[in-house]
Amino acid sequence: MTEAQGMNNMGMNQAVVIGVGMTKFGKHLERSSQELAKEALDAALADAGIECSRIEAAFVANAAAGSIWGQENIRGQVFLKGSGLEGIPIINVENACASASTAFQLAVQAVMGGQYETVLAIGVEKMFHPDKRRTFRAFQGAVDIEELVSVPGGGMKDNQSMFMDIYASEAQRHMDLYGTKVETFAQIAVKNSRHGSLNPYAQYRTPQTLETVLQSRMISEPVTLLMCSPLSDGAAAAIISTERTARQLGKKPVFVSASVILSGDPQAIEQGISNTERATKKAYHQAGVTPEDLDLVELHDACAPGELWAYEHLGLCPPGEGAKLVESGATALGGTIPVNPSGGLISRGHPIGATGLAQIAEVVWQLRGEAGQRQVAGEPRVGLTHNGGGYLYGDTAVVSVHILTR
Amino acid sequence: MTEAQGMNNMGMNQAVVIGVGMTKFGKHLERSSQELAKEALDAALADAGIECSRIEAAFVANAAAGSIWGQENIRGQVFLKGSGLEGIPIINVENACASASTAFQLAVQAVMGGQYETVLAIGVEKMFHPDKRRTFRAFQGAVDIEELVSVPGGGMKDNQSMFMDIYASEAQRHMDLYGTKVETFAQIAVKNSRHGSLNPYAQYRTPQTLETVLQSRMISEPVTLLMCSPLSDGAAAAIISTERTARQLGKKPVFVSASVILSGDPQAIEQGISNTERATKKAYHQAGVTPEDLDLVELHDACAPGELWAYEHLGLCPPGEGAKLVESGATALGGTIPVNPSGGLISRGHPIGATGLAQIAEVVWQLRGEAGQRQVAGEPRVGLTHNGGGYLYGDTAVVSVHILTR
Repeated sequence: MTEAQGMNNMGMNQAVVIGVGMTKFGKHLERSSQELAKEALDAALADAGIECSRIEAAFVANAAAGSIWGQENIRGQVFLKGSGLEGIPIINVENACASASTAFQLAVQAVMGGQYETVLAIGVEKMFHPDKRRTFRAFQGAVDIEELVSVPGGGMKDNQSMFMDIYASEAQRHMDLYGTKVETFAQIAVKNSRHGSLNPYAQYRTPQTLETVLQSRMISEPVTLLMCSPLSDGAAAAIISTERTARQLGKKPVFVSASVILSGDPQAIEQGISNTERATKKAYHQAGVTPEDLDLVELHDACAPGELWAYEHLGLCPPGEGAKLVESGATALGGTIPVNPSGGLISRGHPIGATGLAQIAEVVWQLRGEAGQRQVAGEPRVGLTHNGGGYLYGDTAVVSVHILTR
Repeated sequence: MTEAQGMNNMGMNQAVVIGVGMTKFGKHLERSSQELAKEALDAALADAGIECSRIEAAFVANAAAGSIWGQENIRGQVFLKGSGLEGIPIINVENACASASTAFQLAVQAVMGGQYETVLAIGVEKMFHPDKRRTFRAFQGAVDIEELVSVPGGGMKDNQSMFMDIYASEAQRHMDLYGTKVETFAQIAVKNSRHGSLNPYAQYRTPQTLETVLQSRMISEPVTLLMCSPLSDGAAAAIISTERTARQLGKKPVFVSASVILSGDPQAIEQGISNTERATKKAYHQAGVTPEDLDLVELHDACAPGELWAYEHLGLCPPGEGAKLVESGATALGGTIPVNPSGGLISRGHPIGATGLAQIAEVVWQLRGEAGQRQVAGEPRVGLTHNGGGYLYGDTAVVSVHILTR
């Protein structure tokens, strides 16, 4: 692979995030995808301090508008109607819950490669539908459908709970192997709810307690409702350009120091190497950093045990020591390596095709010192995003890891 | 826009197509998307003379597996299961009937930008479903769904005929304005059926006559069934690399001299400038050629009047003179500018997410002199592909134009 070398080639532009923006995540039944997209876009443009006319191409992420809304095709062209961006190249990308990170990577690579000077990556998702059956369809397509329907008792009715079953069985395994307690998972949910309570963009802003988390409805033993990410609507955007443009605009540049997307490799998985481990290792190599260099992490906590699992697979702690890391308080705001200062998927919300760009927006705000009440202390310089999607070969089908630095 | 300049920057790689492959297009009810993908991929690898392990990333196009098959997400990861390409970055892209051209452009740009040395673009589509209602859904999402359902009498039942209604009204307009005759449209269908009869990959290989075309079922006055592209299953692939790699492999390089994708611009459309005209002009500029330099064209003949319309919008003849061009025989094999030597969408078939790459494959074969009985005479050097998708603002929502040269 030449990707890693490419990042350091003299001939390549360094990609810089010059603006980010997002809507509040939540239930936006009364707002169209166009309205959500325009709000995130306009916020990113205002943040960058540029006019719409500077955007030369748009990479648009969405994962469920086909199944929920019937908008199977030209989603970006439809979402961006009336935005001022009509007429440019619009590329529609999908990678399940990692769709927005995929759009971000394409935008980054287009600037690095010199195809464009300034481009947009935007993720838009409306998961709530007046007909709830349509909302449930959102989770149907993130596995191999043919395999699913061929499994006895398998079906396509409600794959959200299927995903939670997968997380629950991983959680059980961790408990069996390492003596991890359900309270530890609950503690992660409590932490993220506290972080979310400080984030005006978060869907849920009520701090939870160990009791409320543990006593909430059991979804799949040991995973309770308040350990899970919710259904969400929302949009998030980033504008990517060159360092030259960032300096002209007088913006503090936030550099994209690593940009990795990998699909699951069944051979590696069989050897016990997760897709997250492979992608993260590659990202550390590209950026020339180690886990010790990270000042904050936004990771894919589709549910609380998934966050604990990710600590170990991102190398934030050795295998089996995720619980110790949580209990030490290291991953809470004020700790040594704050994780999901935004509230994460659990509290900020998880509009699937927008999540990856909400992670990017959070890290950009944190690196600039603009994260308000949830600001990570000590002027963070290096932030990592981890975004996963789909399920194949017994592992996350797609993992994207980005490292941003200032 | 820096795209055009970028193509000519000294620092950029020239993108080269080193291998192409496709399945026969047709009705493949008994074959899975994986099988179709693998056949096209393996053919492209064999054509390039490389192993699977050389492919560093895959850009996968599909437009209808969500609505038809329920495979809404991670389509590429599912289609490429068992192909040998697991574990690499897989990017799922969609742009309605221009999806495969979009995947091709991303692959080209990734090589030009130096992100990768060798990448795959592949389009896969299975439109036939045992439940025909599912097949009809394939056309639902290529317009603004919200607009469609708000139109009195509008609906989401069968948008294929809706698209044919649009083409029919364009055809009527051309007849009214320029005195074009229905026989001229039929003549285009006859030409493409004759070309298709010479193409082993074509879905339909029976040469038609003016009588059979005119007497086939009326779809939407003046468009008859045999003037329309059919439902199709199939896959098509291209492997893109650098000139250096092409030479090492001892392949005649086929260069990507222009790569354009544009979305519809309502202001330009209002001024009477079509999306096809804008995209084509930009492509000619990138490649430094004029319509007179073209030796062959593969264009988006979703139906016969669409081909005539495209002649004029691609600049193959002045406005209003499309009929004269057809009647002169210029666009038939043996003419001065053969159009759709493959048989086009009408005869080769139109598996929507694969079509753009079938066009690329045809032009590559033609430029290499490997097109067998349908070979364009005179050692062609410059070929153009024109691929359109979706419908917005009263025009094609996405247009992609590529110019390949040797």
